[in-house]
Amino acid sequence: MTTSAPSLMKKFINEPSDVLKESLSGLAAAHGDLLRYDADAQIVVRRDAPVKGKVGLVSGGGAGHEPLHGGFVGHGMLDAACPGEVFTSPVPDQMLAATKAVDGGAGVVHIVKNYTGDVLNFKMAAEDAADEGVEVESVLVDDDVAVQDSLYTAGRRGVGATVLLEKIAGAAAERGDDLAAVAAIGRRVNERARSFGVAVSSCTPPASGKPMFDLPDGEMEVGIGIHGEPGRRREAVRPAHQIVETMLEAVLSDLKPAAWASVLAFVNGMGGTPLIELYLLYNEVDTQLRAAGLNPTRNLVGSYITSLEMAGASITVLELDDELTALWDAPVHTPALRWGV
Amino acid sequence: MTTSAPSLMKKFINEPSDVLKESLSGLAAAHGDLLRYDADAQIVVRRDAPVKGKVGLVSGGGAGHEPLHGGFVGHGMLDAACPGEVFTSPVPDQMLAATKAVDGGAGVVHIVKNYTGDVLNFKMAAEDAADEGVEVESVLVDDDVAVQDSLYTAGRRGVGATVLLEKIAGAAAERGDDLAAVAAIGRRVNERARSFGVAVSSCTPPASGKPMFDLPDGEMEVGIGIHGEPGRRREAVRPAHQIVETMLEAVLSDLKPAAWASVLAFVNGMGGTPLIELYLLYNEVDTQLRAAGLNPTRNLVGSYITSLEMAGASITVLELDDELTALWDAPVHTPALRWGV
Repeated sequence: MTTSAPSLMKKFINEPSDVLKESLSGLAAAHGDLLRYDADAQIVVRRDAPVKGKVGLVSGGGAGHEPLHGGFVGHGMLDAACPGEVFTSPVPDQMLAATKAVDGGAGVVHIVKNYTGDVLNFKMAAEDAADEGVEVESVLVDDDVAVQDSLYTAGRRGVGATVLLEKIAGAAAERGDDLAAVAAIGRRVNERARSFGVAVSSCTPPASGKPMFDLPDGEMEVGIGIHGEPGRRREAVRPAHQIVETMLEAVLSDLKPAAWASVLAFVNGMGGTPLIELYLLYNEVDTQLRAAGLNPTRNLVGSYITSLEMAGASITVLELDDELTALWDAPVHTPALRWGV
Repeated sequence: MTTSAPSLMKKFINEPSDVLKESLSGLAAAHGDLLRYDADAQIVVRRDAPVKGKVGLVSGGGAGHEPLHGGFVGHGMLDAACPGEVFTSPVPDQMLAATKAVDGGAGVVHIVKNYTGDVLNFKMAAEDAADEGVEVESVLVDDDVAVQDSLYTAGRRGVGATVLLEKIAGAAAERGDDLAAVAAIGRRVNERARSFGVAVSSCTPPASGKPMFDLPDGEMEVGIGIHGEPGRRREAVRPAHQIVETMLEAVLSDLKPAAWASVLAFVNGMGGTPLIELYLLYNEVDTQLRAAGLNPTRNLVGSYITSLEMAGASITVLELDDELTALWDAPVHTPALRWGV
């Protein structure tokens, strides 16, 4: 195999065009007990799908956000994931194949991050599925308060809440909720969650071999999306406590949680930020949430919805209630999230 | 708070001198059900320590390798971790405090990565503990086949096998093995494991604000340690399948596993390498191990022993036997590794 100069970037890859399928093959090789990779249909499917009588959960979107979504396929979360190429929407055929593969007779929920391509293609797939007799409910995720419209979508972008929604709706499906109920739980998570992200470096898609944008040393992009879309503004990097203040102010002023509400605080790394920094950020988040009269009873700290190797972080706050808390705590067994089993 | 120019690096931190304690505070805030952070003694301790009658497990070393070691404190793994500042050995007083905090009357195992400072300080702490009536066994980890001696130690460095050893010895302690037996299991893991790492970028310690070394675009350091120590050689970045070939050749020629042996294959990210690449590497590892007549029956893919935000990866191969496999599979509940509970 020859490798052209542009692929000699700081990445562990073979041919840039093979990155996605080789990575998914690796996921399936490592987690064959949980899932299989159908390379022809380009989908990742729960090993024991379809589960008879259980609502199926399908999500998808461009690759480059790993472990989202393939790493969340398994017991108690997604039944299938349809990955497009890096930062590129999957096509309706993939979504249709995934929908049919996981339909156990109780219908299928599509979890759709609000990007124009994803929304359009999932809509076509849902119509095609209906034509083939599979009932589909779509749940839109649009939790990013940073910008109203972005490069890739009208309305707010779907970011960190996607992970929480997939977990919680997955638990609802696993306990036997029907199609309408699982979709309603998903929508409730989206309504009660808000996110905000910042980046201190860019990232380089394998196919182009060039950084998505230029971010000089000492500057950060405030309100960034997960594909290098511009945020609210660019400014000098500030101390972590000030960055968290900015992020939480944006999130909480929009979410308007009840006083003393229990919340799930999710500190997410964008792929290139190490855990020592994410826990430092969580320290600020926990302290500032308590100071704001909120009670972070659950948390998630790690890199779960990423932007390749971007150095950056996002914060998602989900206002919990007893049912959402119980569904969050329910057993889950996927490559990237696992507990209780 | 004022922040001087050198701290305006691409990091989420406040004052560089506060990074470690703020990160550990965040770890404890997020995982208070599992562990506590004793800021005076500068140690992370399992919440319910000491566990009466159970052998205690203590590890430690410089920070910058998160989740190692603090993220492995909990049920079925470490009882305490003693972190030094970034890339700096902890001091004997920390190790002694940790040892006393986790001694449930059955003695304590020190898991020591082979770096001169760590080895020396753990030795002093073990002597002090003995003076205070706590029996200590030390288990040295020196699995890195890349170089015979390095900048920081005589003999091989301790790297990826540390994670596997802490899990497996932790399970042995949890099932009730005595001090000698837990130490023997730990030594068996070290004897049966080998590792090799490569890096495609450097990393920047917060205190200096400068990259540890310079690595031009398109070059990689082959055989690197976890503190930016030089490896075997520097060369042009090659396709992933060739890199894995080099790494596995070094590992397997030294380990000399039995034909058709069951192995645990651990693909570890160094902090700045995204999961999409780690699974692509795992795909190569799995394929090449099978081609070499080995059976990867267990695996671990993720960033578990890191070097700040370094882009890089290491491979560890552990030759399993039935007992090691059962101990690997045993329940574990820590911030960074969790299953069966």
